[in-house]
Amino acid sequence: MSTAPHSELWATEKHDFLELRYRATEVLFSEQSPFQHVEIVNTEKYGKILLNDGYVMITEADEFIYHDMLVHVPLFTHPHPQRVLIIGGGDGGTAREVLRHPSVEQCVMVEIDEVVVNACRHHIPQTAQALDHPKLTLRIEDGVKYVAETAETFDVVLVDSTDPIGPATPLFGETFYCDLARILNPGGLVVSQGESPFYFAAMQHKLLDILHRCFPTVSLYNYSNMSYPGGLWSFTFASQGLDPIADFDPARVAASGLEFRYYNSAIHRAAFALPTFMQRQIKTILDSPC
Amino acid sequence: MSTAPHSELWATEKHDFLELRYRATEVLFSEQSPFQHVEIVNTEKYGKILLNDGYVMITEADEFIYHDMLVHVPLFTHPHPQRVLIIGGGDGGTAREVLRHPSVEQCVMVEIDEVVVNACRHHIPQTAQALDHPKLTLRIEDGVKYVAETAETFDVVLVDSTDPIGPATPLFGETFYCDLARILNPGGLVVSQGESPFYFAAMQHKLLDILHRCFPTVSLYNYSNMSYPGGLWSFTFASQGLDPIADFDPARVAASGLEFRYYNSAIHRAAFALPTFMQRQIKTILDSPC
Repeated sequence: MSTAPHSELWATEKHDFLELRYRATEVLFSEQSPFQHVEIVNTEKYGKILLNDGYVMITEADEFIYHDMLVHVPLFTHPHPQRVLIIGGGDGGTAREVLRHPSVEQCVMVEIDEVVVNACRHHIPQTAQALDHPKLTLRIEDGVKYVAETAETFDVVLVDSTDPIGPATPLFGETFYCDLARILNPGGLVVSQGESPFYFAAMQHKLLDILHRCFPTVSLYNYSNMSYPGGLWSFTFASQGLDPIADFDPARVAASGLEFRYYNSAIHRAAFALPTFMQRQIKTILDSPC
Repeated sequence: MSTAPHSELWATEKHDFLELRYRATEVLFSEQSPFQHVEIVNTEKYGKILLNDGYVMITEADEFIYHDMLVHVPLFTHPHPQRVLIIGGGDGGTAREVLRHPSVEQCVMVEIDEVVVNACRHHIPQTAQALDHPKLTLRIEDGVKYVAETAETFDVVLVDSTDPIGPATPLFGETFYCDLARILNPGGLVVSQGESPFYFAAMQHKLLDILHRCFPTVSLYNYSNMSYPGGLWSFTFASQGLDPIADFDPARVAASGLEFRYYNSAIHRAAFALPTFMQRQIKTILDSPC
C-alpha cells in the first residue's frame, strides 16, 4: 500500500513490467504470517480485496468467476463426486462452491496459512462463510505433507494455489502430483490453478509436463476475471481417463437446479477451446515422450 | 507518462478506480491531434504501445487477439465477403487481417485522425504495413459522415472504435447504426468493438439496444487480451439474418489455408458462449420490445 501526495490510498500489485493499482478506501488487515504478508483492503469498486505478498488473490467483485471455473467444471465432469480435497483455498470460496453440490459427502480443505483463514473469516464472509459447513473438514497444515502421508482417498482434488512463489512453490512439483495420483479414487480427477498463458507460460508448461507424467488425460481450460493481469488465465485438468468434454453431460447441470453467475454448460465446453498460440505451446509438451 | 523518483518511465492508463502502469523504455511519439492526444511508447515486454488520450489502444504483443477476433469471426461467417468497410482502425491491424482473405476485392477504411495513421506508419509497421495494400482505400474523414452520405455498399462493416469518449462518441449512436444497415448488401453484417461487460456494462447494453432496433439478428461474443482492463471484452455482432454459429462452416476456415495466432474454428464457436451474468444482462435488452 502506498499513500500518494493527494492522500489517495492504492493497493498496488507490482510486477517487473506492469503495475496494477486499485483505489482503496481503507486497510482492514495487514499482518506478516509465517508464510507471507497477508493484507485485506476495502475498495468502492471491487469490494474487499485479499492480497498475499502484494498479489491480488480475490476481490469480492469477481471471485465468483475463478471459483465457478475451478469447482464446477470438475464437479460436473465427475459423474458422482462424493469426496473432495482442496489444497489451499484459504479464503473459503472454493469450499463454498464445492458444498453446493449435494453429492458431496465430505470436503477436506488443507490450508497452510491460518492467518489467511482467520483474516477472511473476519473480513470476507462472502467467501469464508463455507468454512463452518458441517461437511467441511478444515486442516491447517502443509498440503504437500498431507497428500504424501494421508490414507484417505478422493474423487476430485482442487489445487487452489497462489503462483509458484512463497508457500505454494512445492505445489508445482512432480512429487506432489504423483502423490495426488495415488490418493485419487478410480475415475478421479485433479484440477489446478494453471497460471497465465501470457505472463507465466513457462510455469504453465512445466505444470503440464508434470501432469503428463502422472496422468493419462491432461488438458487446459481458460477463464477471464477482472483482477488477474493479462485477462486470460488457465486451469489444468488431469484425470485417470475421464474426459472433460466427452464425459460431460449438460443434463446433469440442468438437473442439479443450481445456478451460477459465470459457469453454465456452454461455458464449460467453450473453456476448453484454446487459442491457436496455446494449442501450439501445449502440443509441444503433450507430443513429447514421457 | 510520468517519471518516478528512480527515473523509471511508465505509461499509465488511469481510471477512477484502477491504474494500469506499463514499464516503458522511451516515448517515441507524443502529439495532440485535432481529436485526441496520440502517444506511442516503447516497452521491453509489450513492444510498442499506442495510447489515445492515455488509453491503451494496441500493444505489439497482443494486438493479434483483438484483430483476429474483430475480423475473422465475421469474415468466416459471411459466405463470400467481397467489400469490407472499416470505421476507425487507424493503426492498420484490422485492415491487415481483412486483406488476408482472398475473397475481399476492396476494403475501404475511414479513419478520422490522420495523426494516428501517420504515427503508426512510422513507428508500428507491424500493424500499419497493410495501409499501402492495393485493395485498400484509406479515407481520412469522419466515419459517421461517410456512412450517412456514401452511395457505396458493403458485405461486412467493422467498427474498430475506441471507447465512447472523444472522437468515437457518435459511433455509439442509433443514427450511425441505421445508416450502416442501409449501406449493407443483402446478407451483410456489422461487428463492432463492444466494450467490457465489467467496466462498461451500461455502454455495452446501450449498444445492444441500438443494434436491436436496426438489425433482426444481434449477439455478443467475447475475447481476452493482455492489455484491456478487466480481462473479458466483447464484440457485438449484428446482421440481416446471418447467424454467427448456425451459418458458420468450419470447413471454410480449413479450406482457406490461413492460420491465425488466436482465432480458430473452436474459438469462433466458443466466443459466443456467454457467462451467465452476461446472458442475464442481455436477455433484459433483447426481450424488451423495440
